[in-house]
Amino acid sequence: MSETATTRPPLSPTPRSSLTRSKERGRTDRAELDAVLDAGLVCHLGVLLGGSPVVIPTVYGRDGDTLYLHGSTGAGNLRAAMTGDVSLTVTHVDGIVYARSAMHFSMNYRSAVIHGRPVVVTDEDARMHGMRVMVEHTAPGAWADVRSPNKKEMAATLVLALDLTEASVKVRTGGPRDDESDIETGGVWAGVLPMRQVFDPPISAADLDAGVEVPEYVAGRVTDSALVR
Amino acid sequence: MSETATTRPPLSPTPRSSLTRSKERGRTDRAELDAVLDAGLVCHLGVLLGGSPVVIPTVYGRDGDTLYLHGSTGAGNLRAAMTGDVSLTVTHVDGIVYARSAMHFSMNYRSAVIHGRPVVVTDEDARMHGMRVMVEHTAPGAWADVRSPNKKEMAATLVLALDLTEASVKVRTGGPRDDESDIETGGVWAGVLPMRQVFDPPISAADLDAGVEVPEYVAGRVTDSALVR
Repeated sequence: MSETATTRPPLSPTPRSSLTRSKERGRTDRAELDAVLDAGLVCHLGVLLGGSPVVIPTVYGRDGDTLYLHGSTGAGNLRAAMTGDVSLTVTHVDGIVYARSAMHFSMNYRSAVIHGRPVVVTDEDARMHGMRVMVEHTAPGAWADVRSPNKKEMAATLVLALDLTEASVKVRTGGPRDDESDIETGGVWAGVLPMRQVFDPPISAADLDAGVEVPEYVAGRVTDSALVR
Repeated sequence: MSETATTRPPLSPTPRSSLTRSKERGRTDRAELDAVLDAGLVCHLGVLLGGSPVVIPTVYGRDGDTLYLHGSTGAGNLRAAMTGDVSLTVTHVDGIVYARSAMHFSMNYRSAVIHGRPVVVTDEDARMHGMRVMVEHTAPGAWADVRSPNKKEMAATLVLALDLTEASVKVRTGGPRDDESDIETGGVWAGVLPMRQVFDPPISAADLDAGVEVPEYVAGRVTDSALVR
């Protein structure tokens, strides 16, 4: 994603975005925020509905310091909730941390939490830009190949923009942090079971017309393609 | 996880747990809820803090129709928020759905959304049971090997139980649902890029005492172990 700002302030979490403990895991570099967001595919969006929080998974896209979301213009309650205070979280789980004591079991992870109020994008060019950003985030390279949204589709679509000003990033890496006495006692395995997300070879649509090949922007995403059965 | 109830009501989403569109993706079988929860490692917990939603990633464990969470007794605000109305979501992304038009891009996913009010578990045996459920969810088989939480550790830990009564499950599978006119036009690749989470070979702690081998309950989780470099 392109950067729109040449000077960007460091991340400065507010009380609500620095809730959890383990402050040594906090990061303050905007590049780390960008990296966590760009590596994700789905965010968890928390909105307030009838006085209660509701957390829904949804797609997004980032352009500089703006995060785009979309919804349906038909969902009135959700539309109202999405333009109030929201909390948006993207999490990558990188490993399970096995410790020598139950209390020190943990996860290695990278997580970004954003707070703010999404605004409804109204300008038609800006709305189309938002759609492009989201499709290109989900499927880089695809926008130029596929049919663009038409007027009817865009009329049914709510495009929202969330400023990335109020954000925090937490990262945990490395092995278990066991108590000295448990390390001395010994005899128990401790370490990390690393995890990652992989893409398997693409499956063409059943009704795909003959002669259309898998484009490189899809095939190139496959993980360890040489090793796949 | 063991089942505590012999008869379990079907999932009956309330308005707040059936917010999003595409109702055909909704599932009503409790076994599907269990499967989505049991396959997850981290949930996204939405709480209300100072009038705004806050979404935090956290570990959990399930025993029958009870979901356990934990926190620190030191986090006063969070403790209060976690015993109010919460929304808890577990999502698995199974694939990126490439369509012939931008508007039909989608994800294949399995997602569970729970609503309720977690209660603080006070009985000491029940608290220890909750800890065991969470560790065994994160790291099946490990509880029997590691040092159990001591009194001091348990005193600093908040164990919460959330009833799984109000829950909804959504699942999307299969290829793109393109417009007939776009299928007729043709010429654009469409299909699914499948995704999954894999475990790589474990990394022993740097200070692990010699002679302690990786237990089978860890080694057995490694994905495609024969193919790993």
